[in-house]
Amino acid sequence: MENKVLVKTFIATSLDGFVAGEQGELDFLEAAGSENEDYGYAAWMAQVGTVLVGRKSYDKVLSFGEPFAYEGKDCVVWTRQAIEARERVSTHAGDLAPLIARLRAEGKGHVYADGGGELIRQLLREGLVDELVISVLPVLLGKGTSLFAGLGQKVQLEFLNQTAYPKLLQLHYRVVKTEKA
Amino acid sequence: MENKVLVKTFIATSLDGFVAGEQGELDFLEAAGSENEDYGYAAWMAQVGTVLVGRKSYDKVLSFGEPFAYEGKDCVVWTRQAIEARERVSTHAGDLAPLIARLRAEGKGHVYADGGGELIRQLLREGLVDELVISVLPVLLGKGTSLFAGLGQKVQLEFLNQTAYPKLLQLHYRVVKTEKA
Repeated sequence: MENKVLVKTFIATSLDGFVAGEQGELDFLEAAGSENEDYGYAAWMAQVGTVLVGRKSYDKVLSFGEPFAYEGKDCVVWTRQAIEARERVSTHAGDLAPLIARLRAEGKGHVYADGGGELIRQLLREGLVDELVISVLPVLLGKGTSLFAGLGQKVQLEFLNQTAYPKLLQLHYRVVKTEKA
Repeated sequence: MENKVLVKTFIATSLDGFVAGEQGELDFLEAAGSENEDYGYAAWMAQVGTVLVGRKSYDKVLSFGEPFAYEGKDCVVWTRQAIEARERVSTHAGDLAPLIARLRAEGKGHVYADGGGELIRQLLREGLVDELVISVLPVLLGKGTSLFAGLGQKVQLEFLNQTAYPKLLQLHYRVVKTEKA
């Protein structure tokens, strides 16, 4: 079991569950920015073999320019459209179960479900997420892009642990079971 | 300042921020039920002078029968409709600021904003909440009645502390500022 491939999120939200503002703004995250603290991101990324990302999130990451955030990892973009060719970046459309099954079988490191909400909700609906790591910022955004809104199905979790950093609270859950809609 | 009247929530939600299921179901809370643990409720209620509650939540509380959950406290129901007479229960309609100002001036103990979401969101919009205590159950309900959805305004918080119980994580925030819509 020690080599089991885990599918995990590692995402920041407001206390009301938004991952971005109405126009995709991420400025609420800046409050947690720190030169000396990465909230476990590098340690997590060191275990990641593949980053799975939705189309809008991928475009957002590209918009940040170089260095590419997923450099050195395989990256699968969940989209039905073509994307510009890039080393180690491929696309996947539709049901995610076959993709995750292949990645688990290949065993090349954990799968980082980076986002956005649409991708993470679909993974949850299909029962494909093993663990959720959510960093909760001390703010209510009031409106924006939600991580969980529209999920539609009940997902039973198990609380694993939390880490209280000065600027955010990081929650760690294991996914027990997704109930059928 | 030691006698300052605080307006606080003390509410349980799913990780996706629902306080009840689509039909008002509260069964997800049963997972946290325990004869030996009240999650600080009695200690909090001992400091409460007034319970503030929305109409639907009040009706729900009444439906639980006797003993009345707010026995021994003043209770203000936020509603434009008449309610059946009951000792120490009154109603308030419209803007909440005048009510909270009066309760702060009277100084008869803290104000417990019990819910539901509509009441708590309105208090937040008017900048009237001092602290949020939210007990997060390890479940995604997927749909239901949301605590924060529809808030519409940004509210800056300060994280005070958290308590990890075996069956839930209790988060404690101070409200710093509500930004104008």
